[in-house]
Amino acid sequence: MTATLPPAVARSMETWHGMIERRDFADLASIIHPEATFRSPMAFKPYHSREAVVLILSTVITIFENFTYHRQFADDDGLNVVLEFSAGVGDKSLKGIDMIRFDADGLITEFEVMIRPLNGLQALGAQMGARLAQYLPAYKG
Amino acid sequence: MTATLPPAVARSMETWHGMIERRDFADLASIIHPEATFRSPMAFKPYHSREAVVLILSTVITIFENFTYHRQFADDDGLNVVLEFSAGVGDKSLKGIDMIRFDADGLITEFEVMIRPLNGLQALGAQMGARLAQYLPAYKG
Repeated sequence: MTATLPPAVARSMETWHGMIERRDFADLASIIHPEATFRSPMAFKPYHSREAVVLILSTVITIFENFTYHRQFADDDGLNVVLEFSAGVGDKSLKGIDMIRFDADGLITEFEVMIRPLNGLQALGAQMGARLAQYLPAYKG
Repeated sequence: MTATLPPAVARSMETWHGMIERRDFADLASIIHPEATFRSPMAFKPYHSREAVVLILSTVITIFENFTYHRQFADDDGLNVVLEFSAGVGDKSLKGIDMIRFDADGLITEFEVMIRPLNGLQALGAQMGARLAQYLPAYKG
């Protein structure tokens, strides 16, 4: 599926999918740009910093149950990728996308997440808020 | 941007972008499969029928202010496309995606919408519910 991506992006995508499979995000920072931006499905205001991106992504994956990727989409230059997923949070089923921007070195510079439907997003937001409010006070903003 | 899409899909995409520009959806049914599915950002349960897809899409566009498309993404065979957009609803700014599946004839068979952040989705849902509840009782489900 990553045949059309630039090699540096394809390598980061393989690293990412490997981490998702193993549920082990120890190496996550290695594919995130130091000044990366995270755009949450909950709040409009983005988070800026590799530390915030690592914290949020490694937390959210512990909340999702039966997390599964489906279609992969890329733009013409292959530096922008969308990954479709499904997951559960408690008794709610949800769909979502990861919209990821890479630089030419394959580092993630922007990571944006969208979730549907409303009750799935609310369930995820409640769980994320409980885990992250102490570290990212604006998370629920 | 549509250079990599199959010709039938590229034609439907041009029709779609033209309708968005003119805010005129009189021809929308011509690019929707009779048994198309719509997946709303609000409710998990999909809507099945060309009529529902036409009604929902032509309604939502009257609610969005400053609706603007940004990046376009496609899968390897070009039958699946993601369009990134920004818009406003009342005093809320939102981001969203249209995730569209085409058949080989370029007809839309699935149209899925995701919106962030939570307060933008809630604002949109309230407006959609007010306009569509009489036609699609489950809209807010």
